[in-house]
Amino acid sequence: MAVRLRRSLGADSLAVRHVRQDSRSQLNDSTMSTRTILLLAAPLGALVASFSFPRSDDPLPSWRDTPTKASIIDFVERVIDESSVEFVPVSERVAVFDNDGTLICEKPLYSQMAFMVDRARAYIEDEPELAGKEPYKSLVEGTLDPHADMKAFLDLAMDTHTGMLDSEFIAVAESWLTLGRHPRFGRAYDELVYQPMLELMDYLREHDFQVWICTGGGLDFVRCYSREAYGVPPENVIGTSGLKTYVEVDGKGVLMREGKLVEPLNDGPGKPVNINRHIGRVPILAVGNSDGDLEMMGMTADHVGPSLLLLVHHDDAEREYDYDEGTNRALGVADSRGWRVVSIAEDFADVFPSKD
Amino acid sequence: MAVRLRRSLGADSLAVRHVRQDSRSQLNDSTMSTRTILLLAAPLGALVASFSFPRSDDPLPSWRDTPTKASIIDFVERVIDESSVEFVPVSERVAVFDNDGTLICEKPLYSQMAFMVDRARAYIEDEPELAGKEPYKSLVEGTLDPHADMKAFLDLAMDTHTGMLDSEFIAVAESWLTLGRHPRFGRAYDELVYQPMLELMDYLREHDFQVWICTGGGLDFVRCYSREAYGVPPENVIGTSGLKTYVEVDGKGVLMREGKLVEPLNDGPGKPVNINRHIGRVPILAVGNSDGDLEMMGMTADHVGPSLLLLVHHDDAEREYDYDEGTNRALGVADSRGWRVVSIAEDFADVFPSKD
Repeated sequence: MAVRLRRSLGADSLAVRHVRQDSRSQLNDSTMSTRTILLLAAPLGALVASFSFPRSDDPLPSWRDTPTKASIIDFVERVIDESSVEFVPVSERVAVFDNDGTLICEKPLYSQMAFMVDRARAYIEDEPELAGKEPYKSLVEGTLDPHADMKAFLDLAMDTHTGMLDSEFIAVAESWLTLGRHPRFGRAYDELVYQPMLELMDYLREHDFQVWICTGGGLDFVRCYSREAYGVPPENVIGTSGLKTYVEVDGKGVLMREGKLVEPLNDGPGKPVNINRHIGRVPILAVGNSDGDLEMMGMTADHVGPSLLLLVHHDDAEREYDYDEGTNRALGVADSRGWRVVSIAEDFADVFPSKD
Repeated sequence: MAVRLRRSLGADSLAVRHVRQDSRSQLNDSTMSTRTILLLAAPLGALVASFSFPRSDDPLPSWRDTPTKASIIDFVERVIDESSVEFVPVSERVAVFDNDGTLICEKPLYSQMAFMVDRARAYIEDEPELAGKEPYKSLVEGTLDPHADMKAFLDLAMDTHTGMLDSEFIAVAESWLTLGRHPRFGRAYDELVYQPMLELMDYLREHDFQVWICTGGGLDFVRCYSREAYGVPPENVIGTSGLKTYVEVDGKGVLMREGKLVEPLNDGPGKPVNINRHIGRVPILAVGNSDGDLEMMGMTADHVGPSLLLLVHHDDAEREYDYDEGTNRALGVADSRGWRVVSIAEDFADVFPSKD
């Protein structure tokens, strides 16, 4: 078990994909700092949007030079400035990111749902009589919508995620992540991460932020790729999880995956609860994209001191997807509380990392 | 809530008490490295026990120069040596420590149990009719043994730890930790930490280990002092925890402490489960003192690659306590599996930090 678990967590080197950064940094060798530019540009308000950052100093080359990018850099520069009243000591620099739709493409299905559907199909191949039973029946008939039917979703999740050794699940998930391809983009699911978010996470780490993922998705599924895709180690992933038990088999302990959820499910009001359980601090920066991120963002916004809230809005049908479902309430709150909405169409110069 | 939570976590500087290190380092200015000495001493086996380490290079001055100390230094030097087949990359250098009886004095009562008893007495003062109801009745009559009666223990734990705001609990626990005094030593409970363990944690961190606490005690109670007492930040504490809920009060989110345990209780087989949930890696070093640490130590020992297991044995009635209850099974397993037993009488030159 231990071997599997350890191997499963990927290479030790953090192979974060920063494919664009090198080429872009050659475009401009100006030594004017982004800080200076921001200070100069600050009184100009929205005009900063037309500013062109000198590429060599740009920590966020895949972000267009919009007010969103300016607000990120301004926030980071304020909290790391020891002479500022808004200075935040290193220990309190905690940033939390939702995963699906915030760091990685979630359409047409969450990657983990695509995994579940593929696993369910494999179960039917092994055991054809399943095709007559729900939720498999609807799946075969093409009428199953795991987004709409919570019971079918939970049944599928339990069948495909529990009742096995932890090491078995991880082997299956890793294999699927290696072989599975996104139906539209034809790339591995964990390649369809947002290049601007990779740069943002790197920028924060360079300034001694702890970068955490707080996902409604499965803790172990996301851990299978979080280190390689984002540079986020397993201990910095918070997710929805099933209960496990530790049992001895042939004198060695193994972890069994039981069919019972660890409360709370890591979505909506469960996110602050699990952030408290895992981190024990209130974040100062939170990035989400849907109604399920509202409480995590609210917790972050409520704390006394500087905070930055970013809500990703999917409005780019050409390069990614354009949808509002599941985000209407969040967009309203962002508007009323003055949180920054990140427009993929307007704020992202690149969406995905370029192919190697 | 946020303010309280953040303030509760203590000073930002890690005020680990290393009161002895400075004075000891002046005793000897030899530049011979501990490594060299170990290499020279290795073939001499038990004779290493008579070796005197040059104090200036000694990372563990409060440990006597015994085979235990030599085994610790030998282990660390092997896993950090890139040319060694036992080299362990930084990301996998995870050390887990039990808390009560391993890092801090647990007699005559766990500090958290002393807290519970004091809280229960305060409840009776506020509400005298409680004195007629269990478990308060037995408490008043002096017949309650929270070690022996699990139901009374859990009832007291629920009454004193839940049904309130998280911020309220933390304020009460911090106040008690500030004012409470150990009945024998007359010092604050969180001063009765083992000086040799403080040095061991520091030594490990100097060599890029992640140092985690994995306690059967309460997550939030231990977090109240872990940073100041041990230099362990809240995100590196794993403990037993009640479920919390996130609710909005006057438009701001707060965490409520509910009367329901988060499974599993962090003891025995629950420890590997929670280590997997919080860390997602298998430790390579585990330190415990009781039967409740066996599975955590077993998980660590089972993994492929180097590991070090240390079991603290309380055998020093004069300087601390002398007891075997709750540790008999662990002592047997340590013997059969070749884990190192740490004798407080023989291995600890000092037990507690000297008074400031």
